[in-house]
Parts: sequence; C-alpha cells; structure tokens
Amino acid sequence: MNSAYDPRTALRLTFHDAATDFKSGADTPVKYLERCLARITEREPVVKAFVAANLSAAMVQAEAAAKRYRDGTVLSPIDGLPIAVKDVFETRDLPTGWGAAALAEHPPARDAAIVHALRKSGAALVGKTALPELGFGPPAATTNPWDASRTPGGSSSGSAAAVGAAMVPAAIGSQGRGSLTRPASFCGVYAFKPGHGTIHRGGDGGSQPTNTHVGVLAGGLIDAWIVAHTLGRSAGPHPGHRALKGPAAPPTPAKPRTLVRMEAAGWDRTEASARQSYEDLLERIEGAGVAVMRAGDDPTWAALEEELETAGNALGTIADYETRWPLTMLVEADQETETDAFDPLTVARGLRRLDVALTDYEAALAYRRDYRERLAGLAQDGVFMITPGATGPAPEGLSSTGSSVYQWASSLAGNPVVSLPLMAADGLPLGLEVQGFVGEDASLMAAGLWLDRAYRAKEF
Amino acid sequence: MNSAYDPRTALRLTFHDAATDFKSGADTPVKYLERCLARITEREPVVKAFVAANLSAAMVQAEAAAKRYRDGTVLSPIDGLPIAVKDVFETRDLPTGWGAAALAEHPPARDAAIVHALRKSGAALVGKTALPELGFGPPAATTNPWDASRTPGGSSSGSAAAVGAAMVPAAIGSQGRGSLTRPASFCGVYAFKPGHGTIHRGGDGGSQPTNTHVGVLAGGLIDAWIVAHTLGRSAGPHPGHRALKGPAAPPTPAKPRTLVRMEAAGWDRTEASARQSYEDLLERIEGAGVAVMRAGDDPTWAALEEELETAGNALGTIADYETRWPLTMLVEADQETETDAFDPLTVARGLRRLDVALTDYEAALAYRRDYRERLAGLAQDGVFMITPGATGPAPEGLSSTGSSVYQWASSLAGNPVVSLPLMAADGLPLGLEVQGFVGEDASLMAAGLWLDRAYRAKEF
Repeated sequence: MNSAYDPRTALRLTFHDAATDFKSGADTPVKYLERCLARITEREPVVKAFVAANLSAAMVQAEAAAKRYRDGTVLSPIDGLPIAVKDVFETRDLPTGWGAAALAEHPPARDAAIVHALRKSGAALVGKTALPELGFGPPAATTNPWDASRTPGGSSSGSAAAVGAAMVPAAIGSQGRGSLTRPASFCGVYAFKPGHGTIHRGGDGGSQPTNTHVGVLAGGLIDAWIVAHTLGRSAGPHPGHRALKGPAAPPTPAKPRTLVRMEAAGWDRTEASARQSYEDLLERIEGAGVAVMRAGDDPTWAALEEELETAGNALGTIADYETRWPLTMLVEADQETETDAFDPLTVARGLRRLDVALTDYEAALAYRRDYRERLAGLAQDGVFMITPGATGPAPEGLSSTGSSVYQWASSLAGNPVVSLPLMAADGLPLGLEVQGFVGEDASLMAAGLWLDRAYRAKEF
Repeated sequence: MNSAYDPRTALRLTFHDAATDFKSGADTPVKYLERCLARITEREPVVKAFVAANLSAAMVQAEAAAKRYRDGTVLSPIDGLPIAVKDVFETRDLPTGWGAAALAEHPPARDAAIVHALRKSGAALVGKTALPELGFGPPAATTNPWDASRTPGGSSSGSAAAVGAAMVPAAIGSQGRGSLTRPASFCGVYAFKPGHGTIHRGGDGGSQPTNTHVGVLAGGLIDAWIVAHTLGRSAGPHPGHRALKGPAAPPTPAKPRTLVRMEAAGWDRTEASARQSYEDLLERIEGAGVAVMRAGDDPTWAALEEELETAGNALGTIADYETRWPLTMLVEADQETETDAFDPLTVARGLRRLDVALTDYEAALAYRRDYRERLAGLAQDGVFMITPGATGPAPEGLSSTGSSVYQWASSLAGNPVVSLPLMAADGLPLGLEVQGFVGEDASLMAAGLWLDRAYRAKEF
C-alpha cells in the first residue's frame, strides 16, 4: 500500500485551472462537485475525514455558481470551489463540535468569519472535518489517506486527509503549534499558513488567540493562495492585525536566493529515511542554483536555531495558558456538572493546563516578543527558512498525531509558511516546509511557486 | 419623580462590607440574595433591566456560599455576590441573545471567560441584562431607574439600570465606545473600566476586539474593584494583553495631585445644568486641595484634547470595521436567508458598516497607535484626566441612549476609567469620569477611592 505514494504522480485535485472550462461550459461547478462526491463515496469509509456532511446544500451552492459562470457574474476566484472546514469553525447550518460529541449538540447561531467569507465568495461547503477531542484529547478516527494504519497528523486531521485523499481540492485548517503543516506533510498535500492574524479567526472557538493561525490545505499552491487571499479580502485580517498583502492572482513565481536550514533540535529526532530524502532534495535544489545554507554556519542564525527547544517551551506555555478558556473551562464545567462529556485523557490534559501561572505566561510572551524581533532582524529579500515538514513519514497507529517539533519556531514567530509535498520517505509522503518573514506572505508564496514549478518541470 | 435623586443619599447596594456579618452569621448570602429578589420584584416591572432570570439557580449558589462562610472555605472576595451579566456574554444555563430574540434561540455550549470566573469565585448569577439589538440597533425596553420616561443609556443598559435600581450590588457590562460609563452616569452608579485587555473577553460575542473593554457597574467602588480584580485573577487577561495589577484588597485611597479637564468638543454639547454641576464639583474638589488644570493651559495636553473629534472618528471607523464579524455578518446572513430576525434599523446600521474600507481601518489603527503613545508620554504620578460622565442627565425617551462623546478618548486609548456618581443635574444623576494611564489601574482606583471617601465625608 505504501508503495502507492509518489510525490510527482500522486492524485491531487486543483480548482483554479477549472475556471476556463467553467466559463466555456466544458465543465461546470456541479460536475466538479459530483466528481468530489464520487471520490468521497469511494474513500470516506476508510479515511473518515468528515464529522458532518453538507452535500445537498453544497450542490445548491454549486448550481448557483454554475449559473454565475454562465451569466458572467462570478463572485470570486473560488466561486464554486468545493471546500471542507475544520470542525473548530462555527457553522450555522452544521454542528460545530471541536471533536467532541457533547459540544456538537449546540448548533451555533452564526458562522465563523471565514465560513461567512467562503459563502459570500461562492464556495460550496462540503462538510466539517475531524480533529482530536478539543484539539488535544484522543485523536479522531481519521486515517492517513496513503496508509490507513497510520495517523493523518493533527489537529487539522480531517482537513489534511480529505485533501490528501483527493476528496476535495481544498480545506480550511488551523495551527497553534503544528496543526496545519504537520498533517500536510503526513498526507502529501500543500499547505499555506499565512502570517498570524492575516485571516480573521472569529468563530474559531477562541483558543490560543495569539498563536492560532487560520490556514489552507490544498491540492496545489495556487489554490492555497486564492483561498487564503479571498478569505483575507472578504473576512479581513483579525482585528488589530496586518492584512494579507499580495495580488488576487497568485504572485509570480520567483526563484529564492538562499534557503536557510533550521532543523536544530528536530534533526536528532528525525528518522534516517526522512533525513536522506531531505538531504537528497536539498542537493538537487542546490543543483538548480539555489543556495542552501546551514543556520549553524552563521552565528546570528545559529543562536536562533539553537533556541528551538526553548522556543518550543515558550510556545507550549502560551498554548496551555491561552486554551484555559474555552477548552480547559469546558473540561472544568464538565467535571463540576458531572456530565462526563469528555475522554479521561482530554480531562487530564485539560486540567493540567491550569498549572501554568500567569507569571510563566508573561515570561513566555516576553520571550516571544524578543524572538520575533531577532528573527525580523534577519529578514532579507530572497532568503527563506526551511525544515522537513515532520520528523518522518506518518507514524503507525492512530493513538498519536506525531511530533510537531518542526512547527514550533514558525508557530511562535507567527510568520508565513508554505509546505510542499516534494518528498517521500519509506514510500509515504514527506513535506518541505518553507518559512518567510512576517508580512512577506506574497514573496514566500512566490518562492514556493517557483520551487513547485521547478520540481514539476524536473529542474531538480 | 426626578427630585428623588440625591447623589449623597441614593440607595446603593454594597457587598464587600457584608462579609463580616456572613462570617459571624449575623447575615448570610441567602438573606442578601433574598433582599435583592424582593427589590427585583418591586422594581423590575418598570425598570425592565433583565432579559433572562436565573433566580432558583442563584439561590442554589447563595446557599453553597452561605455554607462556605460558615465552614471557613470562602472561595474569593465575591463569594456569594449576587451579580447580573450583560447579555453579550455566553452562559451555558441561560440564553445569550445580544438583544436579539432570534439569537437567544441558540443557547451556547459554554460560558464566557468571565462567567466561568464568576462561578468559580462563588458569585450567584442572577440573570442576563438588556442591551440594544446587537448593541447598535433599537434600544431595549429598559428604563432609567430614576425616571422611567428616560433612557438608562447603553449599550450596557440593563446592567446599569439593575445596579441603579439597587436590584443587585454589581453587574458586568462592556464598553467599545461609551457603553459602560455613560449608562453609569445616567443611572447614578459607580463604574470601573479596567485597561483594555486586562480582563478576558472570551465569549463576549467577539465584536470590537481591539476596543471592547469588560467592566463592572456597582453600588460602590470597592465592590467594582473586588469584582474586576477577581475576574482578572481567575479568568486572566485577554490573551496577549497585560494583566490587571494591584492588591486583592482594594488599593489604599490616595489623594490625586492634579485632575486635568479634558472636555474638549464635548463641552459645547453639554447642557447648562450639567456644566454648572461639574464646575461646582470641581471648585469644591479644588477647595479640598486637589489641583484642577485645564488641558487647554498646556500645549501638549491641549493638542490631545483638541483631537477628541478626530479620535471619535478613528474610534468609529475601528468599531464599524471590527463589528463586521459577527454583528454585521449576522445581519447579512439574515438578509440572505430572508429570516427577518432583526429590526430594519439594525439592518440598515449593520449593512452601512460594510462601507468601511480596509485602508480606512488601517489608518485608524495607525492613528490610535500614535494617540496612545502621545498619551503615555504625559503619564505622571498623581495626575488623572477628568470629564463629566455625559453631556447631561439621561435624555427623555427610550429611542436613543444618549451621546458617548465623553467616552471616545478613553475608549480609543484603552486606558482605565472610574466613574463616580457625585453629581446631579436637573434632579437626575450625573457622573464624574476619571481616567488613568494604561497599566495604572490600581493607582486610578486609589484616586477614585480617595475622591469618593472625601465626598462622602463632605470634605468637598
């Protein structure tokens, strides 16, 4: 089963290239959705990416979009796009459960900001996707689309798996520590985590406000960009944050000048097969004329890289403190009312978060401010940071969603990241994670598009 | 009816001074709550402060608190406190409607951060209080407790009226533009708006994240402090924001050195009776040895004061943009689904907010950053800014909640404010608003406590 995965030939749905056929009538959003539905029927029984489906409503949306393409009244670049949304985002016509059945019993009165923006932009909301209970409890039943005995990663488990199984071209996920790009690596899909706050988080449940990023998992980088850009324009940035800058059409691909390797503490934990694939890929990228530098070769970069573990601890402290409300609170309320709505693991992990003192949180915020300033000081045109997307291919079993060590630094920094499924290890997907600097979403995407195009053209 | 109001003798409930009797058994939280319930029975038919009541559950809380006082296991300084909460805050056992019946049909699965903190601290949640539809639509049916033909102010209408009618000793409100201290002025109650972000806003509906303050309306400043401080400790600051610093016991009263008059553009709109009361009060305060300075007498202060109108516009732009989600979005969804859940005025005002461009919002944020920096540069120990709490006593009629001009500057600045009901105008309440500098919540409260004590002791 593993041998089925080849990063160059893996089936991935794309949407941006369908618009021409939609306009000519050679294809329609209805037919596109029907193909997705057929694929869902085929793959979902094993992949279990969805916790709620919205298929007839999605078809109504697709029909309206088809009419708009015929009439020349297209709403946005994602008009008619079948899309799945992680079940942390509130939806007024579908339950919202955060991976917990008890919460799904209270359907929200409103849509999350990004859900509202998707609807206004003409997208067809196919369903809500699975995550571990409250994000940190036992993983969902979702399986890895390339090997059902393995985890899809988390916490955007269902979103990554739905795209990885080519059931939808794109899905919305979110990342506080490693929840978006780690599952992208495991499931062999593209991901775009725009800089923190560039997409409105309203209605995402409210946890980790200063760490959580809204992001996109997709079958291609262009789709990831047009979804993120449309959301950034329609929903706006999260209040008080910088907006997502860049063209509505994707940025022109631009060859990066230097990629800085930032593996640090993650390297010791990385499996030999993944190391080998990564080294091979970087050698080929160098062969295509992009400099690859080790952070360790420059004292300023090295100092930041060496702090990965410290950064991870600060991130953990912030995440734990900021999830006290509403997540830990839900556990506390459950304990007090003796409702037993949550798994004992969720309860234990939730209550442990109450041990984080305000002073520890304040110290972590101060550390983060300093870390971000130092990182910003290293910003240069054409320079990006890279790591493997994970310490190896998706681990066996569904009881753990794998290590997020390679996401710690960029989650703490709040900088934009693209993840590209350019590698395999042990016959399973492995991503290349490329980080830009804060505010440089568009130039990061330009670099990502160049790398992807060069890879597809076998320039490396 | 108007002649009933005298700021020195008006009935106001206090709670902090009941603890001694609770411990000795001379009084109990149950008896305290019973007195509140009797008062609610008497006043609520006319005042209409509440949209949902929780009386039997409140009695269960009071009974548990009574036992804790007997057993010496008191949870916090507000254990057993009967308190009302503005209906923007999510409550898992009561509907949450934002002043809109349609929203109240979707009971939330969780408590807002401050509601959870109130429960953990032993407070008895008496009910949810009224506000205009979505905060900006037609006012609630709530009447002014001192004259039922007049507005209580808004948007924390019910919270201010419930305290003003002495139905509860304290209530939670919130302020984005002028929603907390303006109704405090109209209803003759104390208010404490701690600095922006010092109290967790989670579950407040999510609008105006960078302007909205959680605050307390109370029958006395000490109660306002112990409620705010307990919330600040239990719920913590809003993620990423500074914490509320200061002692759990209220700060020691401290005589202010200088009060800087910042009426600016509000003065021309202020009624003669209110001007007279304010001038009289300031003359008496000066007589008690506190310097009162006109901002206009110092060029740096004058420049800031003169920008009140500009500041108001920036605040309006920010408020309009930041309420697009979820408030305007709810209106848009209502229009699309033809549910007609909202009043035409709410719809018109909501949709108009979509006209605010991202670039206008970004410019307003930049203006605010600059305004805050300039204000911070003026911070000095013992110096506070003052204005009347409103341009006059509560206006007649219920169709408008009055002008918020005197709250614009402090809402934009995000600095802490106390409002003291030390004046009357036309036989109705009028507040004195005292602003501190960001981070100086405790020293502001110390100044407020000194002013209040000196006033009660007839030192002015």
